[in-house]
Amino acid sequence: MFIKIGERINSSRRAIARALESKDEAFIRREAALQKKAGAHMLDVNCAFNTKDEIKDMEWLVGIVQKETGGLPLSIDSPNPEAIEAGLRAHKGKALVNSITLEKGRRDAILPLVKKYKAGIIVLTIDEKGMPETAEERTDLAKKALDLVKNYGIPGADLYVDPLVRPISSEPKQALEVIKAVKSIKSSSDIKLTCGLSNISFGLPDRSMLNAVFLAMMLAAGLDAAILDPLNKKIDAILKTSAALLGDDEFCMEYIKSYREGGLSL
Amino acid sequence: MFIKIGERINSSRRAIARALESKDEAFIRREAALQKKAGAHMLDVNCAFNTKDEIKDMEWLVGIVQKETGGLPLSIDSPNPEAIEAGLRAHKGKALVNSITLEKGRRDAILPLVKKYKAGIIVLTIDEKGMPETAEERTDLAKKALDLVKNYGIPGADLYVDPLVRPISSEPKQALEVIKAVKSIKSSSDIKLTCGLSNISFGLPDRSMLNAVFLAMMLAAGLDAAILDPLNKKIDAILKTSAALLGDDEFCMEYIKSYREGGLSL
Repeated sequence: MFIKIGERINSSRRAIARALESKDEAFIRREAALQKKAGAHMLDVNCAFNTKDEIKDMEWLVGIVQKETGGLPLSIDSPNPEAIEAGLRAHKGKALVNSITLEKGRRDAILPLVKKYKAGIIVLTIDEKGMPETAEERTDLAKKALDLVKNYGIPGADLYVDPLVRPISSEPKQALEVIKAVKSIKSSSDIKLTCGLSNISFGLPDRSMLNAVFLAMMLAAGLDAAILDPLNKKIDAILKTSAALLGDDEFCMEYIKSYREGGLSL
Repeated sequence: MFIKIGERINSSRRAIARALESKDEAFIRREAALQKKAGAHMLDVNCAFNTKDEIKDMEWLVGIVQKETGGLPLSIDSPNPEAIEAGLRAHKGKALVNSITLEKGRRDAILPLVKKYKAGIIVLTIDEKGMPETAEERTDLAKKALDLVKNYGIPGADLYVDPLVRPISSEPKQALEVIKAVKSIKSSSDIKLTCGLSNISFGLPDRSMLNAVFLAMMLAAGLDAAILDPLNKKIDAILKTSAALLGDDEFCMEYIKSYREGGLSL
């Protein structure tokens, strides 16, 4: 089953930063409830931007979001190991840590926390050499990520590799390389894959359309999860249509129901 | 470059059957011109259904459609070898024959014509054992198709294999098997692949949405061509968005132009 990680509770969105500053619990709870209702299996929480005390904010966010959603698992999203630990400490059940790269340094602060709290971990396919260009480099880095987490005593099933979606506006061949990497990793390993979908359309108009069609391509390639906006109608239409196409919607019942309720469109 | 084969001149459509019966040249020419304008690289012509004299009708169709479109290549579509030969005889330039299976019999009547007229040929992945279920069976049959045409002295580049799209309404796992087959054939050979897209949605509501999203998946898997309706807005939106995503639209210029002209939607 494809895992939808809701992206909306992120302080780079001005409304979330404001809600954090004024501790507007009702606003945050509403964002959480709407994403859960739209079928998110997990919610990303990020308060790294435009906030005064990320560590306290993370603790507060994790508490109220899990309370509102009846304990939906969260993706604890921060560049700061202390904020990640605060989030993990406050979290009930199995969390996901978002994210580390293969570069030495931060990963060595974060992986012991992942093990201690039995969390999952997103590893971006970036190492000391920088960002990968080709599908082969990504496939190679995905296997290195698996070795890395295993060396820390973290089960392979708790790993999500992010093959790094880059904007087609500046890197027109990168979408194809990412799709190829997903196919190649899924055909040669059990490594689970996730991505930050909306990077693909950075700098272009009508971003939702590009994000949604790219999602269909990634789903067919074998993507296991994605950080996305579950309230976006185009994303929702692609997810429902893709579920029918890929055999995840028995007798196409959900698809037919959506049609009866007014149809899907992008 | 992805090859769009326009499907609209087919006598299973009542309007086309009527135009054939009354020899309504203007109607056929309009269908041809509209598809060419919408970017079709090739047009399928089929007069096997609801017609009195398929052979004469095929000759007539090929003549007027090529005249109207300034010699756009045609896909000569018939179960009848005599109608195929009539079409090939009337055709100028390189035609495509649609289609044969790997079953003995009809193929042995048609492949010598393909060679004689230096046409391309669509081979469906069906043999004496019937329709394939799995991606592996399709991949195996695609390689047999390549051997078959080469044995008749037809170059591999003139072959298009159709991995047989079957309705998800009755066969919910078949879309995934077809997508896997496309990936597998494209990663292990130079065989070109085409398909009849709309079979996927047979028996379901909102068919265009399923056809369009399935097209995005097949494009990412490596599909080279498809028989489709180039006038369908959802198909057009998917083709333009996919071209931007897959690096076939330099600087996303066409995508941006479409946005400026009112945007793409499904």
